[in-house]
Amino acid sequence: MAVKVITVGEKILGTNDAKAEENKKLLVRHGILTVNIMSSPGAGKTSLILSTIKRLSKKARIAVIEGDVASSVDADKVNALGIPVVQINTAGGCHLDAFMVEKGLHNLPLEKVDLLFIENVGNLICPNNYKLGEDIRLMIASMPEGDDKPYKYPAMFADTEVVVLNKTDLQPYIDFDEKAFRKVVIGLNPDVIIFPVSCKTGEGMPAWFDWLEAALKNKKNK
Amino acid sequence: MAVKVITVGEKILGTNDAKAEENKKLLVRHGILTVNIMSSPGAGKTSLILSTIKRLSKKARIAVIEGDVASSVDADKVNALGIPVVQINTAGGCHLDAFMVEKGLHNLPLEKVDLLFIENVGNLICPNNYKLGEDIRLMIASMPEGDDKPYKYPAMFADTEVVVLNKTDLQPYIDFDEKAFRKVVIGLNPDVIIFPVSCKTGEGMPAWFDWLEAALKNKKNK
Repeated sequence: MAVKVITVGEKILGTNDAKAEENKKLLVRHGILTVNIMSSPGAGKTSLILSTIKRLSKKARIAVIEGDVASSVDADKVNALGIPVVQINTAGGCHLDAFMVEKGLHNLPLEKVDLLFIENVGNLICPNNYKLGEDIRLMIASMPEGDDKPYKYPAMFADTEVVVLNKTDLQPYIDFDEKAFRKVVIGLNPDVIIFPVSCKTGEGMPAWFDWLEAALKNKKNK
Repeated sequence: MAVKVITVGEKILGTNDAKAEENKKLLVRHGILTVNIMSSPGAGKTSLILSTIKRLSKKARIAVIEGDVASSVDADKVNALGIPVVQINTAGGCHLDAFMVEKGLHNLPLEKVDLLFIENVGNLICPNNYKLGEDIRLMIASMPEGDDKPYKYPAMFADTEVVVLNKTDLQPYIDFDEKAFRKVVIGLNPDVIIFPVSCKTGEGMPAWFDWLEAALKNKKNK
């Protein structure tokens, strides 16, 4: 199946939060657990999604909305796994908004989806200000970015439910003080859950898979 | 000397490009070579500045404007080297603009500066749209971000004069195809100069230092 590409050109009017509420109602009606994944460019959003699809696609029906400034590189990778995916190209825009996600939802077979990943544009600032209708906000911090990122980009760390600390396989080769990192993150966000993982080696991934499976079960029981 | 911190809160009106031209005239009048440094969070902007200060501060009088969403972590590091520095906090804003830089310039001893680094907010999208008055646009790509970044964030790669490809010391531990990366970058931007470096080990840095020294000499001879 060819990847659906939506290019969002013109300025979209209206209130983002109201549209996000509409999206949420639609997603709740279909019993879909939705995860909005945010990070800097290259921190591992697509890798996390691909690994999770490989692990959970027999237990849950997964779909993906891919947000990018340009290209369908990521959507092509998801599509290759046989998972329904829509690519949203923001044409220079620095974040997804609820209107773009609405267009994405209209191009997915929602009645056949249990778990939806929305991969936001790679940006540690702007996506944080736009609700999309998600249940869970997840951000990825990449070890090579350095342990000082929570100081410098505090809002996203403060507002997320989950921090995935990726590329732990590079820890031996870089200066990254995980204890110091955790301290600042928990200071900003006492309820946050932190999963140190390597999407490359699989280290730490089972804890994330288990947590997500439990969230899926909770959603179904609601 | 204490670090000067400017917090930019309210919406700044006016035309950015016109203000950038004013900044440029002021900088030209003082014979200052100005470099606008852009990248994702954690790609190595501050590391490049600190290494360059250490190497060139006896040959040129350097000053720095540090842009961050929050904190003065980076400005403190520059200040510790005895270099004039102004911290601009954007209070959530995702880029520097020419008005913020104007405020920074008014807080630097311009008559005693040959080389000005402006460290932009860590963001691979928004800073590209705002001229600041610089002579040189420089972006840093970090190897652990992956070789597909030029596909996904083409505008900044297309509009920059210099690409510093940092963290080459991590090449043995990651999948990064430098040949493929170069091909896409040069396709977007045939005149670009690419410096593969490791700010950590110093590998590749002499070529960057030499190039910058030559640019400083050119500026003085104008």
